[in-house]
Amino acid sequence: MELSKITSPADIRGLGMAELKELCDELRQTFLVKISNHGGHVGPNLGLVEATVALHYVFDTPKDKIVFDVSHQTYIHKMLTGRIQAFLDPAKYDDVTGYTNPKESEFDLFTIGHTSTAVSLAGGIAKGRDLQNQKYNVVALVGDGSLSGGEAFEGLDEGATLNSNFIVVVNDNNMSIAENHGGLYSDLARLRATDGAAEDNYFKTLGYDYIYVDKGNDIEELIGAFKKVKDIDHPVVVHIHTDKGHGYKPAEENKEAFHFSGPFDLSTGKPKQEESGESYDEIFADEMLSQMKGDPKVCVLTAGTPGVLGFTPELRKEAGRQFIDVGIAEQEAAAMASGIAKAGGRPCFGVVSSFIQRAYDQLSQDISINNTPVVLNIFYGTILGMNDVTHLGWFDIALISNIPGWVFLAPATVEEYLSMQRWAMKQTQYPVAIRIPGGKVVHSEGEVQTDWSDLNKFKIEQEGSGVAIIGAGGFLSLAKETAELLKENGIDATVINPRYLSGLDTAMLENLKKNHRLVVTVEDGILAGGFGEKVSSYYGTSDMKVANYGLEKKFADRYNYKELLEANRLTAPQIAEDVMKIIKD
Amino acid sequence: MELSKITSPADIRGLGMAELKELCDELRQTFLVKISNHGGHVGPNLGLVEATVALHYVFDTPKDKIVFDVSHQTYIHKMLTGRIQAFLDPAKYDDVTGYTNPKESEFDLFTIGHTSTAVSLAGGIAKGRDLQNQKYNVVALVGDGSLSGGEAFEGLDEGATLNSNFIVVVNDNNMSIAENHGGLYSDLARLRATDGAAEDNYFKTLGYDYIYVDKGNDIEELIGAFKKVKDIDHPVVVHIHTDKGHGYKPAEENKEAFHFSGPFDLSTGKPKQEESGESYDEIFADEMLSQMKGDPKVCVLTAGTPGVLGFTPELRKEAGRQFIDVGIAEQEAAAMASGIAKAGGRPCFGVVSSFIQRAYDQLSQDISINNTPVVLNIFYGTILGMNDVTHLGWFDIALISNIPGWVFLAPATVEEYLSMQRWAMKQTQYPVAIRIPGGKVVHSEGEVQTDWSDLNKFKIEQEGSGVAIIGAGGFLSLAKETAELLKENGIDATVINPRYLSGLDTAMLENLKKNHRLVVTVEDGILAGGFGEKVSSYYGTSDMKVANYGLEKKFADRYNYKELLEANRLTAPQIAEDVMKIIKD
Repeated sequence: MELSKITSPADIRGLGMAELKELCDELRQTFLVKISNHGGHVGPNLGLVEATVALHYVFDTPKDKIVFDVSHQTYIHKMLTGRIQAFLDPAKYDDVTGYTNPKESEFDLFTIGHTSTAVSLAGGIAKGRDLQNQKYNVVALVGDGSLSGGEAFEGLDEGATLNSNFIVVVNDNNMSIAENHGGLYSDLARLRATDGAAEDNYFKTLGYDYIYVDKGNDIEELIGAFKKVKDIDHPVVVHIHTDKGHGYKPAEENKEAFHFSGPFDLSTGKPKQEESGESYDEIFADEMLSQMKGDPKVCVLTAGTPGVLGFTPELRKEAGRQFIDVGIAEQEAAAMASGIAKAGGRPCFGVVSSFIQRAYDQLSQDISINNTPVVLNIFYGTILGMNDVTHLGWFDIALISNIPGWVFLAPATVEEYLSMQRWAMKQTQYPVAIRIPGGKVVHSEGEVQTDWSDLNKFKIEQEGSGVAIIGAGGFLSLAKETAELLKENGIDATVINPRYLSGLDTAMLENLKKNHRLVVTVEDGILAGGFGEKVSSYYGTSDMKVANYGLEKKFADRYNYKELLEANRLTAPQIAEDVMKIIKD
Repeated sequence: MELSKITSPADIRGLGMAELKELCDELRQTFLVKISNHGGHVGPNLGLVEATVALHYVFDTPKDKIVFDVSHQTYIHKMLTGRIQAFLDPAKYDDVTGYTNPKESEFDLFTIGHTSTAVSLAGGIAKGRDLQNQKYNVVALVGDGSLSGGEAFEGLDEGATLNSNFIVVVNDNNMSIAENHGGLYSDLARLRATDGAAEDNYFKTLGYDYIYVDKGNDIEELIGAFKKVKDIDHPVVVHIHTDKGHGYKPAEENKEAFHFSGPFDLSTGKPKQEESGESYDEIFADEMLSQMKGDPKVCVLTAGTPGVLGFTPELRKEAGRQFIDVGIAEQEAAAMASGIAKAGGRPCFGVVSSFIQRAYDQLSQDISINNTPVVLNIFYGTILGMNDVTHLGWFDIALISNIPGWVFLAPATVEEYLSMQRWAMKQTQYPVAIRIPGGKVVHSEGEVQTDWSDLNKFKIEQEGSGVAIIGAGGFLSLAKETAELLKENGIDATVINPRYLSGLDTAMLENLKKNHRLVVTVEDGILAGGFGEKVSSYYGTSDMKVANYGLEKKFADRYNYKELLEANRLTAPQIAEDVMKIIKD
């Protein structure tokens, strides 16, 4: 059928099997054309073309509810639910986000981006339905990779007790972003090998009825299975075996690289732009591989995102047992790191800013209260990083700096980062978190100190008077730019690199009182609970004026970097303008 | 043997079976005498007497490592590891904490208090051991109730892949604090019913070797099982079926009440002191039962702590399907609540302050980004609550108030609380968190408003000039006391009840500039990331002076309330003294 005519799933429900198969081919090709030009999640969507069509064919959406886990596999779902133009018309490519979004469509239940949440959310919908004695199907679709997250287990465990319609579709492509890790995956492998008949069945242990579909890219089989469970009166798992990247050879052959990709050449699968220049993933991987070789006690942990850390399949092999991927399970990575440190190992857990909040309790209880010398490296902790509302890197300062016991470092340059990381991995006195700077990779000019054990010592980068600007981490450059502009107005501002986010250099702050009347703080994250507020509180009863710059406490989705910075007056001209006004008052 | 002569587990390793049995009896009786006089965790320890003796008998502790989950079941462990005097000598009862604590003994690996962490921590120790090519046994002991927590699943999933010695003892007494909830528990029941032979075995699905011990209070059986797995070269689960409260009839018969108890009469099991006076558990349960009766869409969620919410077994029965205990699984409770709200239900998740940090990601992603009208009630969010380092109620202000989207309310009285709770449950515009005040239950004198939708409007409780004191939640009384003292010094201070912790009343703060020169903030939690710092930041560029009062960012264990408050100058005389000094400057 003509894709442009699909306005809702109702339009496909009258199709015959041959037409449905043709539809799947057309959807796949259309998807590939857009994604090769635009970039996005490739493999997860290719593997789920048939299942998505089958779900909307069998279930009476939107009355029946489908909750997609992570929801980066919903591009086909969007094509079927009134958003086809965003895939056909290049001018409209950006009309849709890469995740489900209720603002786009009533077929999208939640804005989702973190993994392992769908079963819990869908279980809640089923419970809400039951409280109101309503009738409709509730379907959670969750990938095998997401099952390693504790929330997915909690959701399955509770969902099993619902005593009413609850359908969990497990989309098993035998891959997470990278390969899977965890004992559960041996069970999934046994189930795949036995056509679902293996003796110990994870889903059955939790109390689910169970159906296995080996040909998870065969729409006829899928429709048959979904019809069987439609309107079922108890919890059931439909375990479908799909092929990540299905129908596009380069993605089938290189599943990890094609999990997510920038624009690529459709005929060859080659990226259109090679990444160039320095980046912290490579800097991290180089440094840690070298540390590992020098010391068998050193190890690196990831919770399912080895690529973020620069650990390609080759480097993972090289690191051997010193590289530990626990699967998508941040709680485990943090707590396990604490155990490793307790036993004398030297663990570094590298994690994306937006995901570290999944392990707050472990940072506090398992690590800090026990004062185990775990090292945490926070990637993408910056306004200049990921800009999907579900992946913002703005909150880690408020998260980590307010937990007692952590030494939280904010390097401004590569050299500072490496020096801090080497010190952190050697020392055994504290848990240490290091926030890898965002924005362009910057280098230090002079020598960088090697010992960071004298905590909370800020560094004066430029000595001036009247106004002092404290620029934390990657935003030190913004502080320097602002000072440049102030110079043009006759103000010789002091510029300070705080380096530490977990405590104040009260001696230096006290000293500033002598010949400064305004302290400006600039940080790469939200203001609420962050670094600047602590400086304001410190000076609260003195005559020193303080102006804090950072983001207002408010979510933003797919924002324009420049606009967001300007809206928060986070540019050098704006800050300089404000300063002139404040000191004139 | 004479208990007082036990200085280490080595002292019991030469005993014969009859002597070991006698030892268990003596330990149990000694434990009961202390605990009936002192209070503490009763049932968990009674059920584990034999297993604790067997573990230390078989394993070469402290070279072999045992990590206890939650660790409230380690009283017998403490008696065997050099701390017997704290159980024999009433004067020394408080020499030991109620949890494992490395500061007390090398036999204690971690300070633990939250559930579901032991498998992850022990897995880390095993990994650290392996990286160093060392040899010793690593044992995690985890209760069935803790298995519902996602971190326990993550730990089991990863631990299964260790390829080396890793022993998980599952202490299955078929109880959490209250009864268990979740599909997994039907599997444990099947395993118990079949002597461990049921077809679908949760632990085997994850890849564990498996041994079942039905008589988990028979020391001979336990020793046999532990000997079998000692020095094993791969991960194994030893599933022991114990009896919570074993050997003390009142505790066997009323397992929930005897999970934890204050002092009780040993012969009857009756509490020595009946609780008296008003308390928020009853106020909450009364209110919510009444709301449930009026509206079938209203429901209450707990993550395994119904007692904290005042929901006794009888009240839970009365509430029926409107009361949802998801087991110890805070992530699930939060995310499920979001699903319920999305489907039109009206959920209230009641949770202990120290435990809400286990669901940070869900508060942010599953709830706030989706703006689902979930209501959260925070219990024990106060300095005056639990004082074990693992259960501090100090961090929830910094946690919740810095997540965009949440309306976070701090009632100071019962009437304010009830009014806010009723409004929160009716409205559908925001997720709303309410911090139940700590300290003595206080009542309002005048009328309390019923509509809280005009956000961030602070209330002037007493109008004065010069100095304004903002006292949040339960600490409004401290603000009032301070104002009284200031009056004696001729200062007529304004007292403000902010009611909202998630935003500032900038109009009122602006207005204060007219005839105030000092604003004091007082909050019942840590300063870092809290309420007061935001007020300081607001006034940063003005002439208003601000002094923030709250706790320094530092953990404390089993603190004396008065001493901690004084050390942080959180008493009315100290604040008044400081104020006099500041305004004189």
